Amino acid sequence: MRAAFFEGNQKIQVGPCVPLEPGEGQVQIRVAYCGICGTDLHLFHGAMAHRLRLPHVMGHEMSGTIAAVGGGVSGYGPGDRVTVRPLDPCGHCPACRSGCSHICHNLKFIGIDTPGALQGLWTVPAHTLHRLPESVSMQLGAMVEPLAVACHDVRMGEVAEGHHVVVVGGGPIGVLVATVARIRGGRVLMAEINPFRLRLARELGIEAVDPREVDLPALVNERTAGAGADVVFEVSGSAAGAEMMTKLPRTRGRIVVVALFAEPPRVDLFRFFWRELKLAGARVYEPQDFEAAIALAASRQQCLERLITAVEPLDRLEASMRRMEGGGEVMKILIRCAE
Amino acid sequence: MRAAFFEGNQKIQVGPCVPLEPGEGQVQIRVAYCGICGTDLHLFHGAMAHRLRLPHVMGHEMSGTIAAVGGGVSGYGPGDRVTVRPLDPCGHCPACRSGCSHICHNLKFIGIDTPGALQGLWTVPAHTLHRLPESVSMQLGAMVEPLAVACHDVRMGEVAEGHHVVVVGGGPIGVLVATVARIRGGRVLMAEINPFRLRLARELGIEAVDPREVDLPALVNERTAGAGADVVFEVSGSAAGAEMMTKLPRTRGRIVVVALFAEPPRVDLFRFFWRELKLAGARVYEPQDFEAAIALAASRQQCLERLITAVEPLDRLEASMRRMEGGGEVMKILIRCAE
Repeated sequence: MRAAFFEGNQKIQVGPCVPLEPGEGQVQIRVAYCGICGTDLHLFHGAMAHRLRLPHVMGHEMSGTIAAVGGGVSGYGPGDRVTVRPLDPCGHCPACRSGCSHICHNLKFIGIDTPGALQGLWTVPAHTLHRLPESVSMQLGAMVEPLAVACHDVRMGEVAEGHHVVVVGGGPIGVLVATVARIRGGRVLMAEINPFRLRLARELGIEAVDPREVDLPALVNERTAGAGADVVFEVSGSAAGAEMMTKLPRTRGRIVVVALFAEPPRVDLFRFFWRELKLAGARVYEPQDFEAAIALAASRQQCLERLITAVEPLDRLEASMRRMEGGGEVMKILIRCAE
Repeated sequence: MRAAFFEGNQKIQVGPCVPLEPGEGQVQIRVAYCGICGTDLHLFHGAMAHRLRLPHVMGHEMSGTIAAVGGGVSGYGPGDRVTVRPLDPCGHCPACRSGCSHICHNLKFIGIDTPGALQGLWTVPAHTLHRLPESVSMQLGAMVEPLAVACHDVRMGEVAEGHHVVVVGGGPIGVLVATVARIRGGRVLMAEINPFRLRLARELGIEAVDPREVDLPALVNERTAGAGADVVFEVSGSAAGAEMMTKLPRTRGRIVVVALFAEPPRVDLFRFFWRELKLAGARVYEPQDFEAAIALAASRQQCLERLITAVEPLDRLEASMRRMEGGGEVMKILIRCAE
């Protein structure tokens, strides 16, 4: 089998790779598809280099079928259709002990801290598996991981029927957050500046505006009789987004920080005081979010399929990274891994 | 009777004043004591000038006895010992309609938007009254308003028995937040740089450290077996405080923003993401916080009394403002209003 090896310096070499036999508590998966995440693009550009052992195999948004199971694994067998929740917590840190193992202090993120799914056969701990029903295609199965992020974000935002929701940023996660928020009964408005992303969001039925052209706080006030939004998701990771997020919520409204901010932006803490706003960070997912995502993937196939811009062979991974870094006309690219 | 008139340009003139007869739904109070709030000092320095009609009578941390009641007022009569919750909400804005009238969009803060308590006889709406029991002296009664702020903050922070709590900033509100958090069962650590305030906090039994001398995140981690604090109160309003506040909480721990930030500081939103931190703004108080504060004032007199640095006559208001702006050896100054 072959794997895509990231060699640093924005170079990816696809070549032969000896499959890792599944050890105790592990399974080996024949990887069907693996999506390219924004995080993979960051790795490609040199981020988190201290966490990688080069050459590194990336990838964690995947689907596949079990090829072999190691000792002590029950409930799964060869041929089972699965996706992987790529978190390997330590089990004994304060976060794990307080029921937050998904944000374990010593969390190993599979695909960053250990080899990822951009290879033909991938060996992972069995505790990371979630079963994919027949109704979820292998391509949609590779969308479950980002969809689980969105399910987690919307759950943390406590979005409920009739809530006014604003999603700041319309990349893959922003669109998924907006989609899940709508399914949960939210009335969603999205802010995005990229014309391709605006168009795609609108095609998916999301009301999306360019905040450089529309006075977003005024629009939200108009929609809510002057009250403000119930929940705002900051998914842009931009200084402009960090500035916008505090202008939109109602008194005691909520802001969920989904994006990664490389630099601490300026945040209007006075507005938090004035309106008694609440803010919560949301990171990755818990098992229930994966189950919710799989259920949504089964019932809302068309929306998810529309987000897949291209499906490429493993050899095209580096070219696909370059296409994504252009930023323009691309949402999600899936890589076909098994040959 | 006399009143202290703020004339702008850091000038206060004490002179005769015609008492305002209580109208429908109002009461006239003979003011016993009125504390000087940090907000009053800000007004003195020219802040919020657009909200003042000069000459302006400041003051909202007060105690007194009812002198006269207007029409339609029931439940109160002359001689009743009271304090005032100085909020006059509109009753019809989105905040009022959602049960948050204390942060009404059109809130009139009595003592800023309307004349305050630094006069012999003060006329206010009867709906602002809270009764003071005999066990609360008139001097302590003037401490109820800032204590109610602290009760509100600690309630918003959901401090519970055994929680590790850090209070960043040891001015009057910081000390009161620390005191209430301890009464609610919190294990409190305070960060403060002013030696007088550090000493006073320690005299009150609060463990207080100078974060320039002590590695506060390391100390919190040591105390919590690496977990971090359950609740952090940002009461400093400083850039250093805004930077410190995100370093201290445990996974899913809470930050309560109590201080006013004139400029948006840089805030480490990545840390919110990474640890799924929560932040909430807390502003003024609700009726239940005033009742809680009165109960505490009755039972914890010594602590509150220790915060009163000086009691001065009305004529010394401007001099007291100047003493406070020095910042050094002063916590709370009470002004004796009735003559």
